[in-house]
Amino acid sequence: MSSHWEEFFATHLPPSDFEDNRKLLKEFCERQNKLQNNIVLITSGGTTIPLEHNTVRFVDNFSAGTRGSSKNLYRSSLLNIQNLGSASAEYFLEHSYAVIFMHRQKSLEPFTRHFNGQQFFDMLELSDREIGPSSTISVKPDSVDVLAPILAKYKRAAEAKQILYINFTSVVDYMWLLRASCECLAAFEKRAVLYLAAAVSDFYIPSDKMPVHKIQSGEGAPTISLQLVPKILAPLVSLWVPNAFVVSFKLETDENLLIAKSRESLNKYKHKLVIANILQTRKNRVIFVTPTTSYEVVLTREQALSGLEIEEPIVADVVRKHDEFVSTIEHQ
Amino acid sequence: MSSHWEEFFATHLPPSDFEDNRKLLKEFCERQNKLQNNIVLITSGGTTIPLEHNTVRFVDNFSAGTRGSSKNLYRSSLLNIQNLGSASAEYFLEHSYAVIFMHRQKSLEPFTRHFNGQQFFDMLELSDREIGPSSTISVKPDSVDVLAPILAKYKRAAEAKQILYINFTSVVDYMWLLRASCECLAAFEKRAVLYLAAAVSDFYIPSDKMPVHKIQSGEGAPTISLQLVPKILAPLVSLWVPNAFVVSFKLETDENLLIAKSRESLNKYKHKLVIANILQTRKNRVIFVTPTTSYEVVLTREQALSGLEIEEPIVADVVRKHDEFVSTIEHQ
Repeated sequence: MSSHWEEFFATHLPPSDFEDNRKLLKEFCERQNKLQNNIVLITSGGTTIPLEHNTVRFVDNFSAGTRGSSKNLYRSSLLNIQNLGSASAEYFLEHSYAVIFMHRQKSLEPFTRHFNGQQFFDMLELSDREIGPSSTISVKPDSVDVLAPILAKYKRAAEAKQILYINFTSVVDYMWLLRASCECLAAFEKRAVLYLAAAVSDFYIPSDKMPVHKIQSGEGAPTISLQLVPKILAPLVSLWVPNAFVVSFKLETDENLLIAKSRESLNKYKHKLVIANILQTRKNRVIFVTPTTSYEVVLTREQALSGLEIEEPIVADVVRKHDEFVSTIEHQ
Repeated sequence: MSSHWEEFFATHLPPSDFEDNRKLLKEFCERQNKLQNNIVLITSGGTTIPLEHNTVRFVDNFSAGTRGSSKNLYRSSLLNIQNLGSASAEYFLEHSYAVIFMHRQKSLEPFTRHFNGQQFFDMLELSDREIGPSSTISVKPDSVDVLAPILAKYKRAAEAKQILYINFTSVVDYMWLLRASCECLAAFEKRAVLYLAAAVSDFYIPSDKMPVHKIQSGEGAPTISLQLVPKILAPLVSLWVPNAFVVSFKLETDENLLIAKSRESLNKYKHKLVIANILQTRKNRVIFVTPTTSYEVVLTREQALSGLEIEEPIVADVVRKHDEFVSTIEHQ
């Protein structure tokens, strides 16, 4: 049974660093609102559902990857879905939006997403074989071409304080941070976009049903009973940020369900836009579903090969729709 | 019920990149064996259990972190447990072991573990505000002191081809790669150490019980029935690498169970050593359990504050025990 969102907040304590994050959100938003900037809250990455109080296992959204043979599907899917949020953040920054990037701890982040740890180390060279006080480290000349434009954008966004990074792990963290963000975004009214790209768990184990210690394998294979996470879009759209431009994402593996489920979601929650993806093809094709229309955003093979990311036209289209939304309201 | 390991391999296909990895393992091991080097296989990070064939959810080992208030416990535990394997790899390299570092995709790796993406970017500075063909990127002087010794060790290990990185995601990937590694390690006989620090799922969903598509939340909260993963230590010790020095890890949250369960494991699988940890304190204290003895390896508060990691004395002790093991056999 679905639990009500008020009950969820009443029975699950906020994360221990919640007040720190709330303060950061408040300061960031007040500054951006004074500047009359547009702002976007991007959520990114999956939430976890812990199975035990003290340790050891959790159910994780999102992933694919099942039998051995689909390992590459897993890899590309997990990265794709994290890439959606982190790449979109870069493009919103280019459209001069202030960005709250609320992401799963350790998931991909804008700019740094382009490199992993070993790639970083391999770009660097030490001046001396034996390290001394005059040793220096520099980026190899042939890596500068790739790194410099990305690094420059990262530094520009950081210096301008145009982006705030906030992270979550469990679905409980996510819920508290999302509500706190909305409290700050409400003041932006129509200038706020919510771009809810995180893969939030549908299920959780209620705190009072969770064992304290690690489930012992000697006790036989456990059966895990999950409870539905409350549908947070409902209070978000109707109560928390009633004037904002809210975009949700729908991810399915079964194409037949996709548009029907997206339309159902719009009817139920009354937000503006669902961006619908099929897991296996989302890197090259998504469907924009509004209450009255649906159309595809597609990358051609040539565009994909030239390095264009689908997040660039996705964000461009969202920004255009948001502009229209703002001016429609102004003319009413 | 526990499935038998032969049945597990018979019913779960190898990952698609399995043959590539097997080739890498074979070449690495043949080269190191010709050099008569000691070798250690380190497994690190947690395995996942997918809940559906095509997407979206999995049960993940390892994690803590449950209700909001324990988010910091989660963070430190997850990082700690990945740190165990990746830090140990650095110390085994210092003891001149060849290292196979078999780790969870995207988990911490030796050397690069010391920095995350933003820390990397923040260490770098661009020569010019506007990027041109003569632009350079260098590490800020005050970051060189920290980065240079780590980078130098990374480059040294890479150039000497002293370390091989192999990664897994699901428990099925892990099983196939572990067996393939053992096939290559058998030739080292007593010179091989297996340092099994990965947090392997105890449970999985058999391939034929897994739904094809994403479980729909409209169908109500699902109940997940898990099956026990076969205890791979049994064939590993008795059949695959019967002459190697095998070290397993035991992680519990309940101190009362720890030594008894470690001894039980040694009795059952007949390997050499269990390193037992309590999740909450493992950064400063572990217990070495052998068939006849048990003793603590502890960091004092001063040592911890000075930056010493517990993996350094852990690895030193394992290396000492491995030396003894090699010479005992030689003298028989």
